[in-house]
Amino acid sequence: MDIIVLKPGTKDKEIRYVVKKLESKGFDANISKGTERTVIGVIGDTSKITEEEISSFEVMSGVEKILRIIKPFKLTSREFQAKNTIIKVRDNIIGGKKIPVIAGPCAVENLPTLLKIAEEVKNAGATFIRGGAFKPRTSPYSFQGLGEKGLKFLAEARKKTGLPVVTELMDPRDINIIMKYADVIQIGARNMQNFRLLQEVGTLDKPVLLKRGLSATIKDLLMAAEYILSRGNNKVILCERGIRTFETATRNTLDLNAIPVLKDLTHLPVIVDPSHGIGRWDFVAPMAKAAVAAGADGLMIEVHTNPEEALSDGDQSLKPEKFKILMKELKIIAKAVGREM
Amino acid sequence: MDIIVLKPGTKDKEIRYVVKKLESKGFDANISKGTERTVIGVIGDTSKITEEEISSFEVMSGVEKILRIIKPFKLTSREFQAKNTIIKVRDNIIGGKKIPVIAGPCAVENLPTLLKIAEEVKNAGATFIRGGAFKPRTSPYSFQGLGEKGLKFLAEARKKTGLPVVTELMDPRDINIIMKYADVIQIGARNMQNFRLLQEVGTLDKPVLLKRGLSATIKDLLMAAEYILSRGNNKVILCERGIRTFETATRNTLDLNAIPVLKDLTHLPVIVDPSHGIGRWDFVAPMAKAAVAAGADGLMIEVHTNPEEALSDGDQSLKPEKFKILMKELKIIAKAVGREM
Amino acid sequence: MDIIVLKPGTKDKEIRYVVKKLESKGFDANISKGTERTVIGVIGDTSKITEEEISSFEVMSGVEKILRIIKPFKLTSREFQAKNTIIKVRDNIIGGKKIPVIAGPCAVENLPTLLKIAEEVKNAGATFIRGGAFKPRTSPYSFQGLGEKGLKFLAEARKKTGLPVVTELMDPRDINIIMKYADVIQIGARNMQNFRLLQEVGTLDKPVLLKRGLSATIKDLLMAAEYILSRGNNKVILCERGIRTFETATRNTLDLNAIPVLKDLTHLPVIVDPSHGIGRWDFVAPMAKAAVAAGADGLMIEVHTNPEEALSDGDQSLKPEKFKILMKELKIIAKAVGREM
Amino acid sequence: MDIIVLKPGTKDKEIRYVVKKLESKGFDANISKGTERTVIGVIGDTSKITEEEISSFEVMSGVEKILRIIKPFKLTSREFQAKNTIIKVRDNIIGGKKIPVIAGPCAVENLPTLLKIAEEVKNAGATFIRGGAFKPRTSPYSFQGLGEKGLKFLAEARKKTGLPVVTELMDPRDINIIMKYADVIQIGARNMQNFRLLQEVGTLDKPVLLKRGLSATIKDLLMAAEYILSRGNNKVILCERGIRTFETATRNTLDLNAIPVLKDLTHLPVIVDPSHGIGRWDFVAPMAKAAVAAGADGLMIEVHTNPEEALSDGDQSLKPEKFKILMKELKIIAKAVGREM
Repeated sequence: MDIIVLKPGTKDKEIRYVVKKLESKGFDANISKGTERTVIGVIGDTSKITEEEISSFEVMSGVEKILRIIKPFKLTSREFQAKNTIIKVRDNIIGGKKIPVIAGPCAVENLPTLLKIAEEVKNAGATFIRGGAFKPRTSPYSFQGLGEKGLKFLAEARKKTGLPVVTELMDPRDINIIMKYADVIQIGARNMQNFRLLQEVGTLDKPVLLKRGLSATIKDLLMAAEYILSRGNNKVILCERGIRTFETATRNTLDLNAIPVLKDLTHLPVIVDPSHGIGRWDFVAPMAKAAVAAGADGLMIEVHTNPEEALSDGDQSLKPEKFKILMKELKIIAKAVGREM
Repeated sequence: MDIIVLKPGTKDKEIRYVVKKLESKGFDANISKGTERTVIGVIGDTSKITEEEISSFEVMSGVEKILRIIKPFKLTSREFQAKNTIIKVRDNIIGGKKIPVIAGPCAVENLPTLLKIAEEVKNAGATFIRGGAFKPRTSPYSFQGLGEKGLKFLAEARKKTGLPVVTELMDPRDINIIMKYADVIQIGARNMQNFRLLQEVGTLDKPVLLKRGLSATIKDLLMAAEYILSRGNNKVILCERGIRTFETATRNTLDLNAIPVLKDLTHLPVIVDPSHGIGRWDFVAPMAKAAVAAGADGLMIEVHTNPEEALSDGDQSLKPEKFKILMKELKIIAKAVGREM
Repeated sequence: MDIIVLKPGTKDKEIRYVVKKLESKGFDANISKGTERTVIGVIGDTSKITEEEISSFEVMSGVEKILRIIKPFKLTSREFQAKNTIIKVRDNIIGGKKIPVIAGPCAVENLPTLLKIAEEVKNAGATFIRGGAFKPRTSPYSFQGLGEKGLKFLAEARKKTGLPVVTELMDPRDINIIMKYADVIQIGARNMQNFRLLQEVGTLDKPVLLKRGLSATIKDLLMAAEYILSRGNNKVILCERGIRTFETATRNTLDLNAIPVLKDLTHLPVIVDPSHGIGRWDFVAPMAKAAVAAGADGLMIEVHTNPEEALSDGDQSLKPEKFKILMKELKIIAKAVGREM
Repeated sequence: MDIIVLKPGTKDKEIRYVVKKLESKGFDANISKGTERTVIGVIGDTSKITEEEISSFEVMSGVEKILRIIKPFKLTSREFQAKNTIIKVRDNIIGGKKIPVIAGPCAVENLPTLLKIAEEVKNAGATFIRGGAFKPRTSPYSFQGLGEKGLKFLAEARKKTGLPVVTELMDPRDINIIMKYADVIQIGARNMQNFRLLQEVGTLDKPVLLKRGLSATIKDLLMAAEYILSRGNNKVILCERGIRTFETATRNTLDLNAIPVLKDLTHLPVIVDPSHGIGRWDFVAPMAKAAVAAGADGLMIEVHTNPEEALSDGDQSLKPEKFKILMKELKIIAKAVGREM
C-alpha cells in the first residue's frame, strides 16, 4: 500500500487521471478527502511498483508527493524471514550465539608477517583471518595489494592455523581467482553500490561480507544486500564500518545505532569493524566493546605485528598483545549480554 | 607553535612582511625552505593567538594557509589537567568509578506523574531525577513546559526520593529561579553555542551539564566548555546526545566515538543520553549498554510511566519496568569494564 | 490529514484503541486495509496536532509510524499567503524586484574604519550597512564585540551614509539597546533555535533577519520563522549562510538549493550570505553571482578596508575595490534574471 | 615538505628514532623546538611519500600527528599545469569559453523517444546527447538499462543530429562495447571510487566524465581523477552532481561551492548536473543558472519528452519546452559572466 498526496486545490479531472493510471496498473484507489488535503490510498501489492513508476506518478499534475509504506527491500527483511540467518563457514558459525572475530592485517604484505599475525590472532581467540590482496586505495600512488600472491599467502595462513579466510573482491574479473582462495568474499565500502559486482556475487555459493558505504543509509545497505539475495545467494553478512559525517576528530563516525536498527529490520547477521570505523588503534578497544554490548553478531579487527612498517592503515592496527587483552575483555562483555566468544 | 605555509613562488618581500608581522606580535620565525614549499614556524606561546589574528595572517599576500598545532581549548584539556575532574552533587559523584544514571521524563507534566516516575527510577537505581520545566521545542505550537511550577514539582520529587535535580536553563533571565531549584543546570544541545548563556553559567557555583549540539564537532563542544571554565566554573559535565547526519532511520546518530576521543582530550566527565541520541525507546537499551562499554561516565535516560500520554518525546521514553531491567543489565556491563553502578 | 501506518498483523483490538483515541480528540478515522498493511487516515484539522500527540500515537501498540501530510509551519507557508512578503526598511524594500545588498565588516571595530567602509559600500551600491556589536565567537578568548559603543558607531555610519543598520541580537537582555539603534535585527545561525530569543523578537515591530543554523533543515528554518510570526511579527527575512557537511575545502557548504525550495514553500524573502557560506574572500564573488542567478532576494556581503587587520573573519572579507567590481557584475546577472540592483 | 608534530614531553630518544627513519628514506629533518611543542620539518620531495608511510610514522612513539603540506594529487593540480585543459570531442570543445550542454534522458528507453528527445535538445542548443544504456539502480527490481541495444540507439541519435554521445560505463567488462559507441565515457557517482574502473579508463584514448561521489570530498574527486591521469588519459571532465547531507528537502545538496574551489585547484574542466543535484525538475532551471553564474564549464541536464512515462528519474526531467526556455535564459547568464552558449 502506498499513499498519493494531492496538492490543495487539485481538480477532479486530475484525480480521475491518477486513478485511471492506477487502475491500468492493476491497483484499486481509495480516495479520502480530508479538510486540508485529499489523499489516494493505493490498494494492491505495491511492493512490485518500481522506483520509476513512483517517479512517473510524482510528475503528474496535481500530485504533491508519494508516501511509500512498504519497505523497498524484501528478501532481506524480517517480515520475509523472522528467524536469524545463520551462516556456516567451515567450522564457524556467523549469526549464532557465539560471536566470531575476524582479525588480521589490512593488506597482505609478505608470508612471514602474515603467518605470524595469523598465529597470534588464532591464539588470542580470533576465528577468521582477514587480509587484502586487492586493495582499494584513495591514491593511485599507494600500494595496491599483492594480487594472487597475497591470496596464496592467505591460503597458507589458513592451512597453518585452520582460520577461514576473508578477503576483498574489487572487480568482477577477479571472481574465479578469489573463489579459489577465499572462504568469505568481502565487498568493500566503496563498492557497496557497485551493482554489477553485487549481481555477480549474488550468483555464487559463497558467503559475502558486505560493508556499509561511507554515505550509505541503512536502507541503502539493505538494498545492496537485496541485490545479492535476489540473485540467489542468501549468505550475506552486513558490516558497519563507519559513516562520513562532519566530525573530523575520528576518521569516520562508527554508527553503532545501526546495530539495533538492522537487527530489527533484517534477519541477516550484523558485524562491526571498529578499526576502520574510528580509525585510530588506541580507540579500537572501547568501540569493539561497545559494539558487542549493542548486540553485534561479530567483529572485524585489524591486527599487525608491526604497525610501524605496515604497508596500509598502520595507524588503525592493534599489536597482538593489545589484541589479546581486548579479546579477554570482550569475552566478559559478550557474557554480560548473553553471548559467547 | 603554529606553522604558516607559503604558496609556491612566494617572493622574499612577502616572506619578510609576514616575519615582520610575527615579530611585531612578539614571536620568532623559523623559516624552513623545502623543495616544494617554504614554511614558517612560529616560535613563542601561540596559544594566545586569537582566531582573528589567524585570519589576518591568512589573507596576507603569499600565505597559503595556517596550520594550528596548539589546541584552541586550554582549561578543558588533559594537558592542562591530567587528572579526571570529579564533581560532587549532594551525595553523588560524577566522574568517579561509579556510573550515575540521570532518569526521568523529558518534560515535567504534573506532580503525581513526576513523583511516581521519581520513585520508580529511584527504586531501579537511578541517582538523579531529570525533567524539563522550560522546554526548547521545534514548534511554537508545542508544549513549552510548566515553568517555575515544574521546578517546584522537581523539588518535591527530590524531597521525596533524595534524588538531586537536573533541569534545563534556556534563558539568562531564568538563572535565579533555576538556581533556586536545580542541583545540576543543563544547557541543551540547541543552546550549546548560546555564548551568553555559557558565560552566565560560567560565573555560577553549580555543576553544568553541557549537551553537544546537533552539528557540533568534539572541538566545538570543548570550546563551549572552555567558555564556562574560563569564567571560573569548572564543574562541567559533557553529554553526547546524538549528532545530525544523513541517516534518517534514527532521529539522530548517537556518536559513541566521542566517548574515547573526549576522555583522551579532556579531564571533564562524559555522559551519554541514548534516549535523544537514537530517538526510539526500543533501541535505548542497546545504546545505553554500548555507552557504558565504551567508557561513559554516566547516562541520562528518559523514563515515563505512560509514554502514550507524555506531553513530549513519548516515543523515546522507557516505561519503568523496562528501565528496571535495563539497570540490571547495565550493572553487569559496568562491572565488565571495571566500573560500578 | 495524517496517516497512521499499522504493523503487519496488528490486532483489531489495537486498531479500535487507536481509533477511539482519535475520536476522543475530535478526529474521524478512515481505515483502509491493503494487501500488506492497514493504514488509518486521520480526518479533521490535523494541523492542530502537536508533536507530542504524534509521539503518543507512535508508542501505541500496533502502530508502526505516523506520516504527516500537513506541513508543520503555517503562517510562513505559501499556502497561508500566496503573495510575497515585502518588507520596507526606511527607503528600502526587501522582497521586491530590486535586490538589496547588505554590506560591511563582520564586527564593528572602530569609528573611522566603519565610516570608511560604510562610504565605500554605499558608493558601490550597497543599500544596508552591517556590522556586529555583539559577536558570537567560538572561542571565549576571541574579540566579543564593542557592545553599545559599536551600535553607536553604526548609527553614526547610518547618519553619514543614509544606509539602514543590520546588526545581531544575541541575548534577550539586549533588546532595548538594539531596538534603539538597529533597523533590522539579525538572529545569528547559532541562535536560530534559541526559542526564547525568537519569541522575544516575535513581539517587536522591527524586521528580523533570521540566519539558517549550521545543521538546520529548511523545515527547521521555517519553524524558527514560525516562532516569530506566531507572536505577531511577520517582517522576517530568511538568510541562507552555509550548512555543515563533510566537505572541509570550504568553511561551510553554501546551500543555494535552499533558494528555489524556500521560494516555493514560503512567502518570506530569502537572502544569501556568501561570505560566511563559503568562508574565503576569493570565492565570494562567484557564489554571490550564483545566488542572484538562483533567485535570491538579497545578499549579505562582508567588506573590510583592511582584512589583514580585521578583528574577526578577515579571511572572508572583500576589499572595497573588489566589492565595487562585484556589484557591477551582479547588476548584469540581476538583469539577466529579470531583477534590478 | 611535511610536518611531524610531536607530543608534549617526547623524549630525545624518540625524536632520534623518527629522524633516523626519515633519513633512511632519504629525507632531511629540521627540528624546531617551540614553547609548547616540538615539530620536525621533513625536507625533501615528500610528494612521493605514500599514505601507508604516513601511517607508519603516525604510530611511532612520541608522534602526535603528521601535517601534510603537499597536496596528494599532482597531475590534476593547477601547480602541475597552470593552463586550463581543453577537451575536443568531435566538433565540440569542453573547457573553453563556450559552455557545452549535455542533454537527454536519464535512461535510453526506445529508439523513437530517444530520437525525438535528441532532435528537441539539439534544436534548443544542446551540444551533446546523454542517455544511460547501463544504469546503476538502487533497487535490483528497477529497470537496469537496455545494454548494447541502448548504445545502438544512441549512435542512431548521433547520426541523425550530429550530437556526440555521453554514456555511462559501469563494468570493466563493458569497455569494448562502450568504446564502440560513446564519444565521452561517464563514470557515475557510485563508481567514483571504483578504482579498477578508473585505472581501465585511464588507459583509453577517450574523454572521461567523472561524477563526484555522494560523499566524496573535493580532494577525493581530484584523487579519483588522478587515477585516470596517472595512467595516461588526461581528458577528464569533472562533474558536480550533488552531495549527501542532512537536508531532505532536496534529493541531494548540489554543491556549487565546488566550482570555484575546483577551478582554483585543478586545470580540468568542471561541469554541473543540476538534475540529479537537486532532484526535482521544477528547481533545475535556477540551479542551472546559478551553476553558470558561478563559473561552470558545462551543464548536464535531463530532458524527457514524457517524464510521466520515463523508466527512470522522471521527476527530475524537464520537458523539451521548458528546456528550450532555460537554454535561452542560460545564454544571457553566460554572456553576463563573459562566456558563450
